[in-house]
Amino acid sequence: MQISPLLESLMEALRCLPGVGPKSAQRMAFHLLQRNRQGGIKLAHDLHEAMINIGHCKECRTFTEQETCTICANTRRQSSKQLCVVETPADIVAIEQTGQYSGRYFVLLGHLSPLDGIGPSDIGLDLLKKKLSSESISEVILATNPTVEGDATANYIAQMCAEFNVTATRIAHGVPVGGELEMVDGTTLSHSFVGRQKIEL
Amino acid sequence: MQISPLLESLMEALRCLPGVGPKSAQRMAFHLLQRNRQGGIKLAHDLHEAMINIGHCKECRTFTEQETCTICANTRRQSSKQLCVVETPADIVAIEQTGQYSGRYFVLLGHLSPLDGIGPSDIGLDLLKKKLSSESISEVILATNPTVEGDATANYIAQMCAEFNVTATRIAHGVPVGGELEMVDGTTLSHSFVGRQKIEL
Ligand SMILES: [Zn+2]
Ligand SMILES: [Zn+2]
Repeated sequence: MQISPLLESLMEALRCLPGVGPKSAQRMAFHLLQRNRQGGIKLAHDLHEAMINIGHCKECRTFTEQETCTICANTRRQSSKQLCVVETPADIVAIEQTGQYSGRYFVLLGHLSPLDGIGPSDIGLDLLKKKLSSESISEVILATNPTVEGDATANYIAQMCAEFNVTATRIAHGVPVGGELEMVDGTTLSHSFVGRQKIEL
Repeated sequence: MQISPLLESLMEALRCLPGVGPKSAQRMAFHLLQRNRQGGIKLAHDLHEAMINIGHCKECRTFTEQETCTICANTRRQSSKQLCVVETPADIVAIEQTGQYSGRYFVLLGHLSPLDGIGPSDIGLDLLKKKLSSESISEVILATNPTVEGDATANYIAQMCAEFNVTATRIAHGVPVGGELEMVDGTTLSHSFVGRQKIEL
């Protein structure tokens, strides 16, 4: 049934959001049309601006519309000489919320996955190597997901760190095996930072 | 924490969608940025177009960007002389999916609710009265929600129909009491149409 082509397009377009099926798309479309058109217009604007203007930080690869993100640009953060490697920008949000960490980050935007053709340069490890060789880094904290791929990626980076005599640690306690870092509660994540262990190769 | 003002704005704006809290807003924003920017841009465009251009059908008050919706403009629909009264445009979608009904609709966009100051003219009953007096309508099917307010609204409209000697029926079987019409499965809704009863005043 085609009541309104614009409405049909909107319901179809809403399904690009994760977890939104035909039924929730319809609920969302009708909710905005009936109760919150101003909110819908603002969302359309903010969404367009974000998709067009947000790029990646040239230092850590996280999402930002600036050349360098606010964390990388922060001199107090730089002075800690710690670098925490995560798979996604969402992991930074989760770690920041613990309040346990005051160093900088490096975002892989993925993990090594040879079967999918994802190698070191696809997850920015050439850039990380440059940082290891040129910057004074005291410790690389490997906070990739506790999955097979996350562990393999952490080990690969730990070997890279060893070449440059940089200590590599892996977050440990509390993070449930097979889970996604982004979904872990703050307390568990705090514990995993406190209990981190040096990787013995 | 403020990594990126544009990203913060987007996550805040996404929360105007029903059922979207801070955590899902973040997931949605990162998902689009990381995996589907084209989808995000299209959604922004379609959302803006829909919010700006979709108004209400001048015959039935449902959402449409045209003056008259495709159902009202359909001459086969007009010839059935039936008018089905529903609370929301989403109810039309649900009823159309049953394939049981081939008449026209009238959308209240709400229900009578004296405590909230919602009276007959707020739900378009002045327009409905005009239709009852000027058009040849054989039956008004009252498909408001099976709630206290929906029942009261149906009774009020049935009395209006009586003034114009138009038969009013209420959908009956299968619709669970206290539920929302929009959420009912197609089979149940089909039964409720077949088993509709004349309202005896
Ligand atoms: Zn950065
Ligand atoms: Zn119409």
